[in-house]
Formats: sequence, structure tokens, C-alpha cells
Amino acid sequence: MSEDRHAQPSAGTAEPLYDVTITTPTHAERARTLVAGIPTGTLCTLALEPDGYPYGSFVTVAFDNGNPVFLISALAEHTKNLERDPRASLLVAESGAADPLANGRVTMLGPCARVEGDGGSARAAFLTVHPNAAYYADFRDFAFWRLRVQSIRYIGGYGRMSWIGQDDWRAASPDPLAPHAAGAIAHMNADHADAMVLYCRAFSKATDVTSATMTGVDRYGFEMSAKTAQGPRPVRVAFARPVVTPEELRAALVAMAKEAKLPGRVP
Amino acid sequence: MSEDRHAQPSAGTAEPLYDVTITTPTHAERARTLVAGIPTGTLCTLALEPDGYPYGSFVTVAFDNGNPVFLISALAEHTKNLERDPRASLLVAESGAADPLANGRVTMLGPCARVEGDGGSARAAFLTVHPNAAYYADFRDFAFWRLRVQSIRYIGGYGRMSWIGQDDWRAASPDPLAPHAAGAIAHMNADHADAMVLYCRAFSKATDVTSATMTGVDRYGFEMSAKTAQGPRPVRVAFARPVVTPEELRAALVAMAKEAKLPGRVP
Repeated sequence: MSEDRHAQPSAGTAEPLYDVTITTPTHAERARTLVAGIPTGTLCTLALEPDGYPYGSFVTVAFDNGNPVFLISALAEHTKNLERDPRASLLVAESGAADPLANGRVTMLGPCARVEGDGGSARAAFLTVHPNAAYYADFRDFAFWRLRVQSIRYIGGYGRMSWIGQDDWRAASPDPLAPHAAGAIAHMNADHADAMVLYCRAFSKATDVTSATMTGVDRYGFEMSAKTAQGPRPVRVAFARPVVTPEELRAALVAMAKEAKLPGRVP
Repeated sequence: MSEDRHAQPSAGTAEPLYDVTITTPTHAERARTLVAGIPTGTLCTLALEPDGYPYGSFVTVAFDNGNPVFLISALAEHTKNLERDPRASLLVAESGAADPLANGRVTMLGPCARVEGDGGSARAAFLTVHPNAAYYADFRDFAFWRLRVQSIRYIGGYGRMSWIGQDDWRAASPDPLAPHAAGAIAHMNADHADAMVLYCRAFSKATDVTSATMTGVDRYGFEMSAKTAQGPRPVRVAFARPVVTPEELRAALVAMAKEAKLPGRVP
């Protein structure tokens, strides 16, 4: 891969937040999590005409063991392109941030080939995410296709980007808490504002915090925006061990609140 | 361009709605309108590594006389790709429909080259749409780039698609009412439900309409969903001549309501 002069500390290393240095998701984990939550993307193929031009088309997508899978028609341009040349990439991009360049996005590159037979695990993965596609999945001109990811470009927003190798991509998994994060954050901010202050004071160097709002949670920890004498500061607090389910998350947060109340924990 | 077996009646021909046949926007006009309203897309370039792979990246975009223009960094992958090979495409896709494949999208293909000097009309067009980019527009590694559109693939949703040639693309213009359409539709549905029934009865064959809701408006006419004895039906009514401004739209709708009330117009 080409040299990456934009690169931040690479996947696997910790990032400093406030003045605490603790485990954060790797870039491979962030990228796997991002794509797992978005069912559409841009498929890039090599056009028949103008010959060899890169051709972007809108597709619905699901992931089968980290590889994008598609249900596409032989009549569509991208399919004709892939039948001649399997080289492809898929861009999956977040939306929602006011500044569009602050959104995360992932480009996965690799050969894309038709899945033989009835589609097997590709079919199962795709129809789980796109159940309405079942009605045309067996039309004669439709088939399942799989892009075998060989390299990955991850851009998590300004200044957070890297190339990810396929070994890291395959070893990583989407964050199991991601589908529950928004609900957990809303609950904590609505009902447990006092616990958030305790977490900051007991488990970070932000001991002068007067209030804090949860801004993110993942399997390794959670992030807050804490009001300090110097203004708002980001604080990240780690779990003792990775949490996988909403129940484990609740138990971990309760245990940490109890621990924070032990004599001597909060200055 | 390759044969298009999905194609519907091509750009320029009228589409039947209810049982009335009247002027509708061409595919070139629909596509120009779609891209004019969306400030982001996927730029497709040819990667250095893996060599020749189509590479999709997220970009912010504006349009300069129908050509996409970008403000990109020499450090970014897509820029390095374009410096070696100018072949590119840009996909711009709508969002919002519950079924993602019902959204419209446009792929524009052509060579993409750096704009010399300070960017000229590309700079002006880009900064009009992305004023916050002014602060990095003169950073040394940033430059304006222009994709000269040579062919266009338009997909307006299910069954509405075609290849558009560059002459039709350049001759077409974005619908001048598009930025005002949502407001006009909301106003008509809130305050002029009775006029809509008159329009249907006087200007379409839907003479048994009991109520109607405006669903779309463009320079050539407007569309309604009309309640008839046979259930809801789409009705399209044409303006006497294209309307360009919100004021002309208001005047046309008022004039048509007056005309509909003339003796003998409504059965």
C-alpha cells in the first residue's frame, strides 16, 4: 500500500483522550463496525464503455464474514462490468454529521465474483439484512456476488485514517454493542447524570468535573464530554474487560458506580 | 454505450399518468436536477495499488456548468490516482426513500483534471455550495479539480433509467423550481385542497375526484394523488408554459384555478 502521510497512530495503538491513555477500538474494529451498520454503498467496477473507466453504482449490501455480498441483475451495468473484469471496490459511508467530511467511510478492495448455486452463506447474510429482496432473489437474471476483501482504506473523519490489511480486517469483528449504543447513551444521560460525574472523578484525571454527558460507548469503554474548570473535555473510561451484551454493559456500569463510591476513590 | 434492456421510454418522450399524456422532464433534466441538489458523492478513480482497481472515495462536490468540481488534497488517495490516470466517474445518489433502490442516482463519467491557477469558475461554484471550505482552499496541498462529463448513467428508481449523452446533458438545466418544491407542495396541501380537486376535474380525465394531494412539482407541471371511485390515482397537470420562479408558480396556479371555475370547464 502507498505511504500514508495523513496517518494517525495506527490501528491497535491507544489514543490519548483528556489526559488518560487507555484501550480504544482498532481502526480495523472501527471499520468493521461502521460497515456492519449500513446496508448500502457504492460499488466501483471497470466499465466496458468508456473502456476501463471506473464506474460507480449504488448497491444494497450485507456482510458475510467480513466480505460484502450483493444481489444484482445480469442486466445491470455493474454486473456486465464484473463479468469481464472482477476488480472492484465498495465504499460504505456514514451520514449525519453536519460537516460531511467528518463522517466515517470505508473502501474495501478485492475481486468480486458470482456465488455459485443458490448463494449459500452470501444468500443467508443478504436476506437477513434485506428480507424484502427474497421476492426477486430467485429471478433468473439475479444472482449473489461476493467481493473478497484484500485491502481496506479507513477514514474515520479528520485525521483518523489508515490502510488496513486483510489479516487485521478478518481478525476484527464489528462492535457487538453498536446496535445498542444509542439507547444506552440516551438512558445514561437521562437517568444517571450523577454516575457520570463519579466515573470521571474516580477513573480519570478529570477530578474537578461538575457534570458529564455520555457521547459514545463501545466494547472497550465509554466516552463522555465533561464540564471542567477549563471548559468541556473529552474523557474516556475503560471497562475492566470487554463487554458484549446490553446486560453486561449495564452490569459493568453499575459495578463501576459502586467502585467509584468506595472510600478514597473519589478525591 | 451498451444496449439498455431495462430502458423505459427515453428522455424527451412523455409518460402517461392516469389517462393523461403531457410533457414531463427529460431524463437529462431529471438527472441535472438530482445532482444539483446533493453536495456529496462517490468519486471513482483507478488505484495505484492494487494496480488498476476501481477505487471509490467520499467527496464533497459542486457543479460548474454541468461538470462536477472538487477541492481535494494532493495527499489523498484519489488525487494520487488521478495524477496518474484521469479516468474517473462520480456517483451522486438520493437518500430518503424507505426502499433504498427506489432512490434516484446518477453516474457521470469523464476525465478529471486539476484546474490551473486559482480555480476560476470551479472555485466560485465550489465555494458557493461549500463556503466553509474557503479556509483550506488555499492550503498548498489543496487544489480544484474538474470532471469533464462525457457520458451519464441515470437511474430514477425502478424502471426509469437510461444513458444520457453529453450533448443532452449540457443542453439540459436543473429544474429552477426544485429548491422551492417542498415549500410549495406543503402550502398547496395545507391551504388549497379545493383548488386541487378543481385542477383534476378541469384539466385531467379524473372528473370523479373527491380530494387530491400534491405530490410533486417541476417547471413543466405538477403531480397529484387523486382519490377517485377506483381508489387513489396519479394525476399530472401541465402548465401552459414552463414556470421558473416561485412567483411564476403562484401566478400559474392561481390562473389555473380561475380557469377551472369558468362555466363548462368542470363537468
